[in-house]
Amino acid sequence: MKKFTAVGDVRHVDRLIEEALRVKQAPLQHKMFHKTLGLVFFNPSLRTRMSTQKAAFNLGMDVMVLNIDKEGWKIEFRNGVVMNGDAQEHSRDAVKVMSQYCDVIGIRSFAKLADREDDYRETMLQQFIDHAEVPILSLESATRHPLQSLADLMTIKEQGLARPKVVLTWAPHPAALPQAVPNSFLEWITETEAEVHAAFPEAYALAPEFLKGVAVHHDQAEALKDADIVYAKNWSSYTDYGKTPAVSEDWTITSASMKLTNNGQFMHCLPIRCNVIASDAVIDRSLVYQQAKNREFAAQIVLQKLLQNG
Amino acid sequence: MKKFTAVGDVRHVDRLIEEALRVKQAPLQHKMFHKTLGLVFFNPSLRTRMSTQKAAFNLGMDVMVLNIDKEGWKIEFRNGVVMNGDAQEHSRDAVKVMSQYCDVIGIRSFAKLADREDDYRETMLQQFIDHAEVPILSLESATRHPLQSLADLMTIKEQGLARPKVVLTWAPHPAALPQAVPNSFLEWITETEAEVHAAFPEAYALAPEFLKGVAVHHDQAEALKDADIVYAKNWSSYTDYGKTPAVSEDWTITSASMKLTNNGQFMHCLPIRCNVIASDAVIDRSLVYQQAKNREFAAQIVLQKLLQNG
Amino acid sequence: MKKFTAVGDVRHVDRLIEEALRVKQAPLQHKMFHKTLGLVFFNPSLRTRMSTQKAAFNLGMDVMVLNIDKEGWKIEFRNGVVMNGDAQEHSRDAVKVMSQYCDVIGIRSFAKLADREDDYRETMLQQFIDHAEVPILSLESATRHPLQSLADLMTIKEQGLARPKVVLTWAPHPAALPQAVPNSFLEWITETEAEVHAAFPEAYALAPEFLKGVAVHHDQAEALKDADIVYAKNWSSYTDYGKTPAVSEDWTITSASMKLTNNGQFMHCLPIRCNVIASDAVIDRSLVYQQAKNREFAAQIVLQKLLQNG
Repeated sequence: MKKFTAVGDVRHVDRLIEEALRVKQAPLQHKMFHKTLGLVFFNPSLRTRMSTQKAAFNLGMDVMVLNIDKEGWKIEFRNGVVMNGDAQEHSRDAVKVMSQYCDVIGIRSFAKLADREDDYRETMLQQFIDHAEVPILSLESATRHPLQSLADLMTIKEQGLARPKVVLTWAPHPAALPQAVPNSFLEWITETEAEVHAAFPEAYALAPEFLKGVAVHHDQAEALKDADIVYAKNWSSYTDYGKTPAVSEDWTITSASMKLTNNGQFMHCLPIRCNVIASDAVIDRSLVYQQAKNREFAAQIVLQKLLQNG
Repeated sequence: MKKFTAVGDVRHVDRLIEEALRVKQAPLQHKMFHKTLGLVFFNPSLRTRMSTQKAAFNLGMDVMVLNIDKEGWKIEFRNGVVMNGDAQEHSRDAVKVMSQYCDVIGIRSFAKLADREDDYRETMLQQFIDHAEVPILSLESATRHPLQSLADLMTIKEQGLARPKVVLTWAPHPAALPQAVPNSFLEWITETEAEVHAAFPEAYALAPEFLKGVAVHHDQAEALKDADIVYAKNWSSYTDYGKTPAVSEDWTITSASMKLTNNGQFMHCLPIRCNVIASDAVIDRSLVYQQAKNREFAAQIVLQKLLQNG
Repeated sequence: MKKFTAVGDVRHVDRLIEEALRVKQAPLQHKMFHKTLGLVFFNPSLRTRMSTQKAAFNLGMDVMVLNIDKEGWKIEFRNGVVMNGDAQEHSRDAVKVMSQYCDVIGIRSFAKLADREDDYRETMLQQFIDHAEVPILSLESATRHPLQSLADLMTIKEQGLARPKVVLTWAPHPAALPQAVPNSFLEWITETEAEVHAAFPEAYALAPEFLKGVAVHHDQAEALKDADIVYAKNWSSYTDYGKTPAVSEDWTITSASMKLTNNGQFMHCLPIRCNVIASDAVIDRSLVYQQAKNREFAAQIVLQKLLQNG
């Protein structure tokens, strides 16, 4: 792989999942001694920050972390502008320079939720892809979170279900969130043998390209029926971009919701708003910590492949 | 040891001091290669941050640092609440996740000085103890600072005094500070053969459990008489919790104060407000840098024991 | 070397450049295994932060990064004051303590541009030099940026020009900047065989000590004539200290400016304000990324010499 930013960067999704699960069996490998990973954050990060560092340590790599907006300079990413405003450095220059000190660069840059075209163009991630001389690892971009999706698919694989019914469901949240996790989950899970459903209020339809091969429901209970996997996540509106239209039904996942399923398992990428996205009881009996643990091995196999360029 | 949060976690205090002093003789050991230390800060840190990292490097460990409130998510630590406010992640989830990527977690969480019961219940530290799957190392909690206390006792031991008279004295400070350092120093020093005194204005009595076996004075000069060790520290009121009642006498430690002692040595945990806690002249001829240096070896022996679970 | 803060700390500038270029041929050396580098930042940093870490990794060192004002304590650097204000720790104490945990300390402390004498006295850097027990590496101080200058001279050397005409030129910028980079560049380049010119508006004369051996111009076009190297940089006024007097001519470097030169190469230390300091077209065909890459090897040879104390 030359980059890891979307499912399309992966040749064989199933094989990658299997390789990641093999890494989990024996993670301390130290294959990449003397290689340097640069982690560049424009946004907060706990799981991604720690699991990716741990994965790099498992490979024997050195790691540099840069909270770029706090520790570096304010970044301009538009081309051709006269930089006499706040921004101190052009992303092109920052990327070219950083990539000279690293063997792989991981970059986190969330959707700003102001301008849909801008977010879906992945302006910042694309600057890294265009200008870096080394492989780029997405640590969540405006529209996708591929390391999360790979860990999610590992977790589902570990359940040992044949052709599981997987339901992605919207759930409430007090603030507007990007569509990166649901987009990404759908583009990955539809590459597997799973039967894929998505449930969301009508105002919360995702971008059409992510709903291909997905059975859509606007009635959560209907969607949950006989589900093996319930993947909850909040997101803001794609059509009325970044807005959070009121929803009259209660979309919080509770023990009662889970009773509709086929003894289904609850999943969420974390961080989760307890008793808003799902009740404490649901979270307590869920796969969320297993998903988080798998982030380490997802990052590790991907780092390995990026460094091997294979 | 399964955790290091209070003197009660240590079986033999004297033996631990001796072991730490032996580490000081030959710190580069690399016994813990491939082990990962996670350092989680809710509050500022210089000595603790650097000395604990150095200790881990001496052991050959990998280190991840997380300034959780700035780099991660806002944390909710109350159980059972509906998380529709500011907090983005529950401490239970954050701890469970972080502990999956680390072999030991160090956590710094100061007293907030608003609610005494809450602080003395050690709500945040307890979340780490309860939910982590790995040993927990306190980097200063609401009520204690055990790595500092161990380094302090090492420093006193290095003076080679038989049954020293040790005086903890309150000293002035422009802002309200927690009681963690004095509490901790007293609970550790009273485990040694030292004769332990504490001097503070009446309004500044520490919690009764920390004053067991301690001779209390409200007259600083009286307490300092024939002291071998003068340990100064400011703290806010325990009884009128977190407040800083006015004090009419001058409690700053000066060269004149030190003349009352038995050629006594001055100690402070740093950072110190010069010419407020103590005069420059006193600080210049003190043990403060030796205390700070010993923080490295205190952390190292404790990390080693936590990893060996012995 | 016992410190690396100005060209005067280096015995043979030409030899150091050659040694740095040899490091570039084979950077992975791991000569300094088990040595710890502490990087202390009072100001933002991208290139310096990453290139110096990478250099340390190349040498097999451990690295601790401290954004001191954000992660540590507020620092008082005046001696003898009563510390009852905002500052929580005296720089003397912070430095003595940090130097006990490190084998080399790198320190970044920019000019504040309020008090010229204070900035040119290098108050903060001097605290590190005075109180640290280990070698001090400047990561840019109030008046100099020696790692940048060394990388710049490496880059010029790589052009293979005999006695090049090197022109430092002032260029516009929307905010007031320190004089550290131009001061430093001049004190280093005048130690080489280059013919050194400096062009700036009259109000922007640098301190006299940095203009020794330098041909000064107030007409940029005249200065650029037949130049082999054009080094652009903005700085604020030294005479009207920290101010930015209006300049009527256009000092931005464009393709037209470069046509005046002897097929000259454009240099800048980055970050650069595109289309303010220089046009995109000039930056695109410049040496700026080569300069940035050389930062890694400049830091590496200097770290090596500081640790060898040779």
